[in-house]
Amino acid sequence: MPLIEILGLVAGTITSITFLPQVIKVWQTKSAKDLSLMMLLLLMLGVVLWLTYGLLIMNPAIIYTNSMVLAMSLILLYFKLRFK
Amino acid sequence: MPLIEILGLVAGTITSITFLPQVIKVWQTKSAKDLSLMMLLLLMLGVVLWLTYGLLIMNPAIIYTNSMVLAMSLILLYFKLRFK
Repeated sequence: MPLIEILGLVAGTITSITFLPQVIKVWQTKSAKDLSLMMLLLLMLGVVLWLTYGLLIMNPAIIYTNSMVLAMSLILLYFKLRFK
Repeated sequence: MPLIEILGLVAGTITSITFLPQVIKVWQTKSAKDLSLMMLLLLMLGVVLWLTYGLLIMNPAIIYTNSMVLAMSLILLYFKLRFK
């Protein structure tokens, strides 16, 4: 695998786990007051578009990353609506 | 410009402004308690790697998006450390 694709996958892996600490924090504190609902909605919209873009240009790093971030953002949206 | 690149730029534009509502919310409430510091650090690390990747493959959507998200994440990190 070319070094450039490895860099893309490392970047993708870090971005994929970026929202995991936030999911854990909200789960533990049961508080999502300071999280912006608009941020979560924009995050999801952006990620869906990136996923489409990644599929069209067949870029594995973009596809993989945005699938993971989509999952995390759905969980955060659920928490935001549940815990306020 | 090919349609695929336009999609990438639209996705990039939405992701670029994703963290703006969060910046505004924290600025207005002066509270960043529910924001995860680890999330912000991972966000910045990921974004720096994506920026490098984007520069290496010369992908304008990736370069543009990640420059914007890097700026937003620096502001959020400052707020997180200032407002706790």
